[in-house]
Amino acid sequence: MADSYAPHPSDRFTFGLWTVGNRGRDPFGHETRPPLDPVDAVHRLADLGAYGVNFHDDDLVPPGSSAADRERILKEFRRALDTTGMKVPMATTNLFSNPVFKEGAFTANDPAVRRYAIAKTLDAVDLGVELGASVYVMWGGREGTESDAAKDVRGALDRYKEAVDICCAYVRARGYDVRFALEPKPNEPRGNILLPTVGHALGFVSMLEWPDMVGLNPEFAHETMSGLSFHHGVAQTLWQDKLFHIDLNAQVIGKFDQDFRFGSEGVRDAFYLVKLLEDSQWPGTRHFDAHAYRTESVDGVWDFARGCMRTYLILREKAERFHTDPEIQAALDDAMVASIAEPAIDGAVTPDAIATMRQGPHDLALFAERGYANERLDQLVTELILGVR
Amino acid sequence: MADSYAPHPSDRFTFGLWTVGNRGRDPFGHETRPPLDPVDAVHRLADLGAYGVNFHDDDLVPPGSSAADRERILKEFRRALDTTGMKVPMATTNLFSNPVFKEGAFTANDPAVRRYAIAKTLDAVDLGVELGASVYVMWGGREGTESDAAKDVRGALDRYKEAVDICCAYVRARGYDVRFALEPKPNEPRGNILLPTVGHALGFVSMLEWPDMVGLNPEFAHETMSGLSFHHGVAQTLWQDKLFHIDLNAQVIGKFDQDFRFGSEGVRDAFYLVKLLEDSQWPGTRHFDAHAYRTESVDGVWDFARGCMRTYLILREKAERFHTDPEIQAALDDAMVASIAEPAIDGAVTPDAIATMRQGPHDLALFAERGYANERLDQLVTELILGVR
Amino acid sequence: MADSYAPHPSDRFTFGLWTVGNRGRDPFGHETRPPLDPVDAVHRLADLGAYGVNFHDDDLVPPGSSAADRERILKEFRRALDTTGMKVPMATTNLFSNPVFKEGAFTANDPAVRRYAIAKTLDAVDLGVELGASVYVMWGGREGTESDAAKDVRGALDRYKEAVDICCAYVRARGYDVRFALEPKPNEPRGNILLPTVGHALGFVSMLEWPDMVGLNPEFAHETMSGLSFHHGVAQTLWQDKLFHIDLNAQVIGKFDQDFRFGSEGVRDAFYLVKLLEDSQWPGTRHFDAHAYRTESVDGVWDFARGCMRTYLILREKAERFHTDPEIQAALDDAMVASIAEPAIDGAVTPDAIATMRQGPHDLALFAERGYANERLDQLVTELILGVR
Amino acid sequence: MADSYAPHPSDRFTFGLWTVGNRGRDPFGHETRPPLDPVDAVHRLADLGAYGVNFHDDDLVPPGSSAADRERILKEFRRALDTTGMKVPMATTNLFSNPVFKEGAFTANDPAVRRYAIAKTLDAVDLGVELGASVYVMWGGREGTESDAAKDVRGALDRYKEAVDICCAYVRARGYDVRFALEPKPNEPRGNILLPTVGHALGFVSMLEWPDMVGLNPEFAHETMSGLSFHHGVAQTLWQDKLFHIDLNAQVIGKFDQDFRFGSEGVRDAFYLVKLLEDSQWPGTRHFDAHAYRTESVDGVWDFARGCMRTYLILREKAERFHTDPEIQAALDDAMVASIAEPAIDGAVTPDAIATMRQGPHDLALFAERGYANERLDQLVTELILGVR
Repeated sequence: MADSYAPHPSDRFTFGLWTVGNRGRDPFGHETRPPLDPVDAVHRLADLGAYGVNFHDDDLVPPGSSAADRERILKEFRRALDTTGMKVPMATTNLFSNPVFKEGAFTANDPAVRRYAIAKTLDAVDLGVELGASVYVMWGGREGTESDAAKDVRGALDRYKEAVDICCAYVRARGYDVRFALEPKPNEPRGNILLPTVGHALGFVSMLEWPDMVGLNPEFAHETMSGLSFHHGVAQTLWQDKLFHIDLNAQVIGKFDQDFRFGSEGVRDAFYLVKLLEDSQWPGTRHFDAHAYRTESVDGVWDFARGCMRTYLILREKAERFHTDPEIQAALDDAMVASIAEPAIDGAVTPDAIATMRQGPHDLALFAERGYANERLDQLVTELILGVR
Repeated sequence: MADSYAPHPSDRFTFGLWTVGNRGRDPFGHETRPPLDPVDAVHRLADLGAYGVNFHDDDLVPPGSSAADRERILKEFRRALDTTGMKVPMATTNLFSNPVFKEGAFTANDPAVRRYAIAKTLDAVDLGVELGASVYVMWGGREGTESDAAKDVRGALDRYKEAVDICCAYVRARGYDVRFALEPKPNEPRGNILLPTVGHALGFVSMLEWPDMVGLNPEFAHETMSGLSFHHGVAQTLWQDKLFHIDLNAQVIGKFDQDFRFGSEGVRDAFYLVKLLEDSQWPGTRHFDAHAYRTESVDGVWDFARGCMRTYLILREKAERFHTDPEIQAALDDAMVASIAEPAIDGAVTPDAIATMRQGPHDLALFAERGYANERLDQLVTELILGVR
Repeated sequence: MADSYAPHPSDRFTFGLWTVGNRGRDPFGHETRPPLDPVDAVHRLADLGAYGVNFHDDDLVPPGSSAADRERILKEFRRALDTTGMKVPMATTNLFSNPVFKEGAFTANDPAVRRYAIAKTLDAVDLGVELGASVYVMWGGREGTESDAAKDVRGALDRYKEAVDICCAYVRARGYDVRFALEPKPNEPRGNILLPTVGHALGFVSMLEWPDMVGLNPEFAHETMSGLSFHHGVAQTLWQDKLFHIDLNAQVIGKFDQDFRFGSEGVRDAFYLVKLLEDSQWPGTRHFDAHAYRTESVDGVWDFARGCMRTYLILREKAERFHTDPEIQAALDDAMVASIAEPAIDGAVTPDAIATMRQGPHDLALFAERGYANERLDQLVTELILGVR
Repeated sequence: MADSYAPHPSDRFTFGLWTVGNRGRDPFGHETRPPLDPVDAVHRLADLGAYGVNFHDDDLVPPGSSAADRERILKEFRRALDTTGMKVPMATTNLFSNPVFKEGAFTANDPAVRRYAIAKTLDAVDLGVELGASVYVMWGGREGTESDAAKDVRGALDRYKEAVDICCAYVRARGYDVRFALEPKPNEPRGNILLPTVGHALGFVSMLEWPDMVGLNPEFAHETMSGLSFHHGVAQTLWQDKLFHIDLNAQVIGKFDQDFRFGSEGVRDAFYLVKLLEDSQWPGTRHFDAHAYRTESVDGVWDFARGCMRTYLILREKAERFHTDPEIQAALDDAMVASIAEPAIDGAVTPDAIATMRQGPHDLALFAERGYANERLDQLVTELILGVR
């Protein structure tokens, strides 16, 4: 049955260079895999049917490269893109590995560090735009605290806003066609990170100078770490018209940031997420921000990449069947799912309309007695996921 | 030493009728305490030094009361308020106990249930305003899912917005001086609740018809259940000028909703929270939404209420000392905490100003080498909390 | 496709009376469903293909029943069992609902309460044996603390041991053919419960007077609440020959005790659990300790019960296929899974044998370089679960 | 007030070389601090008042050292111990950093890897004994899974037992005076680790060939990651006479392994832990397995080490006051805490004694009505912790 789940560039799957290039280092262990050349990554991913690759500035051009090295690297990378037809839809900055950012980047207490963080970002924006990126992701992994005495959170949010506003001002001045996507995460590597969930980022965006230029990059693992529903979070993000990018992977609640192969954990939430993206005809790329287990050699990396895409396509097919399965449709009716579209007041919300709605009659006995067939519906979807209907 | 921590109405402590009136029922056990009359609650809380009481519509006037009963209850309750000088700063609606709301209230799939939920809310707004409440809390405990197939989340957010907008329209039409405060919660009693964190609620408010009329009622237990920092969440809420009310209690991460006595768990986060409220001179009441352990008889209820207020006052004193302790102040300097107030660009954010900032010089070696004394600072605060400095 | 997943008594599925009889009450809401007569429960479950029912003493004979009532209830219940052929393989005691147990039962601080708890248990053992139960479950839901000052944990473990030892002594004296199964749970309704995981219970059993008479009743939801792998926990329990009973349901990590329909959450762990039970040819009954969502009317209860059993059978079929799928078998070889059976020292563990093993040679370069094909294997299993292989 | 909390060798505080030597690397960031020479570590810790240092084989003698290097390193290390009077009470093996252990060590699927892991352990046992260690810790950080298909858990437990049994056989043959202490951890760096909690390790020990030679090394952070009470876990370990070593640090529930300064998070559980260790007069060393925040330079490392010890001493003093505070003692009486020591049956557990106990009378009305003063007691302890009584 494999063939129907073979990915194609039209499926718009992308991977970060850092994902297939992950070498298996973890907090307790050294690297288990050799480095992967970005050019090789482009070719291998193209062979597998991907649409594009994304990168951090430091992934592509190692820090400390000479101008000549930079030139050569970019030339080779561009050639690989041209040869394969692969795109670079998104770029981002590494503001977390270097010890200079140990106390924060956009929200470091030291203004000089903050200035450098913004400068590094603007350089990376230039590089991303040069390679065709139209989305620029901002993950503030070091913006946070272990000791709350050491950070004035309200002051830090002022600085966070300032940094994003400056980046927007720069992009506007340059006339770049690029939008920013904030990536929330609750913790790791900091004890508590600012903008810990998609919700906090949505609230933050509403405070910015140019809110229309800034949206979100929700990540499956990051919302799941807090035990929040990723599907609900992405739904609210779409509802607020702020889904600018997405990071797909897998994660178990309440554990370290695992970045597992998409669908390998939490397959039910993965199904509803795929269904949401497809039902809403969301036009963005399906980006995987994950990596192979540390047990794997190089072969395992490509098994990993292939698996991410296959599982998405398997779930996409199930999402289509959801809409055509007659028993599921009947259960949806019994659950009154479609009736959510009906307003409480149909027309202008006048005092009279409110008074009419208010006086009822309200048939409380009926409301209390009725069942909603959610068990039946949920079992049908479970069986759809398990492939027995 | 007790006397210096005796509460006074000027401390503005409030309790819900449902908190001291909690009878100890839990998912596995029956009630262990007798009912508490609201009038008695008012008198006892006044004796303890509280400022006011808050209530759900059903707490005060039991569902199914006759008009005469309602009249009598309100009269006696008002008399108790008058006698004691106690206030009712906040009111709210019970949209969760009655089976009619089993599938949701503002976001029930059935439009008739939604209409009844809004109507019940407007009745309760009238009652709250009648008793002097200027904040109206909305906790949407039944707005959520166990089975995601059964709810169109984007549609549900449309309905949630509609309900809040109607309530605002009503308040405006009536000319009431009342604001709404949304209370987020991640789960329990539903598998996943809409607006699960203060962040999601802040994002939601930005989508409303009259966003200025709606803010938040963050609850310590609810943010903590998800492992999020309550202190950070309240700081962002303050930063967005949306702290309209607050629910103080205690909770362990990743467990059922415990509603323990304030400060009994998570005392470090409680300290930073008190410090934040006091440093920002937040004018709201300090409301406790908690209850006595099920092991307690009636005496334990008043021990519980007394303890909530005492711990707040003890932590308030420590927050004051934080600002005068010279070693803490020196460590704050080493951590560069005050420098968060300095903008990256001082003045207009012009392309020239950006270019100047960008070109540096950036002294990376210095940034990398410097330490931030966070261990020293954190230990000093630990010792402040432990009362040995 | 439904027919192949229709349950049959030979599948040995059982339900608690309290599961299908659950009325939808939760910490924030009143009952949504009418009471269910135990006799009706027996008939309905038999119709659905179940093997048996289990009960708490109070489920079957309401507290306060007269001797005549008791007689009548038991007679009718026995007649229902006889008519349907349903069995009662397990019984248990309710030591948690009544306020008398608010501070604990076997580990209450008050010795008089402890004596009553043991007495109630012995009565319930008699009743269970009378109805044919050969496993007696002990869930110590009230054995725990909110405030650690209030309980001497080591003293409480002494008392816990004493209570279990007394029950064993009683069973031995009576010559009953019944074994005890301890059911661990980390929290809810207490802040921290003693014997919080299967591990703690396994450790505890090793301290008992008659350790062979006491094993475990692991519950999917309870281990999952703590983020532990239920599959691993049951595997260790089997390894220690202590799996005396099992509670199947579904749960999300770090949330309130949800008791959802088996397989509705955590389907991957459910698959490995079913595979473990089947691979090990474990002879016990497959007991469901779960209940229908509160949204459901009576019809939903039976949808719920049907779904639990169907999902088990669907997963059982997949577990069989796992062993015959050639690609999975090839990946298992590459992962060297079978080699776990080979001892490090084949034969007697003498100093010489240790020295030989120790001196190697150890081919570290080979160990470091090899990959384990876990990504490929895991993806194949994911596709098996999703029904596309 | 600082002087009364100055540590002294008689307090028996120890640190791992890897703790003060931690260089600030994390999953997203490079090292922020220079390497620390073990000899310097010994001197600095001695200056601070510590009793000893512990180490992994690779901490002290870097992998790949020549025999001459090894000799020199050991000579210098021994000289530092002699000069300072510092002890090495515990040693352990690094079976997790090297890629050879990527799939496991004692439970790797490959028997050759398992043999090497045991051999490396025996080498390290020799080294530890040579330096005076009487406790040998085993942390099986790589014994686990991401994909459950790739590991036969029951087979892996057989191998785990075999490895520990071989180590015991070796120690017995050599006549070493050393005991083993298993260190449980639920996850990180593996998705699920075998022996995830103190409970699972206690159960496992009961299955070993020489159970008396093997106990536990519970770690605050590891139990807390799962939301379990560390205090309860250590109490059960003491109850089973299996507390052979302890790892003190701080951790927030449901987050990555933080290894924070002791008492910086979870101070209430830390208090009860200290009280337990002191009340039980546990004779072991108080070992800190933690490290300085990544924000810190070298100075911060010593602030960190000093803080761990000071907080222990502060809490120890509070534990003493607990026993002398008259209000706390009165509340303990009302909570009936001491009555846990009274057996349910005083004397032989005969059928007659059981029958007598069973028939009561049982005064249910009294049990139900009585309150336990847990709120008052808990508030008094809170105030003791906060230093206001």
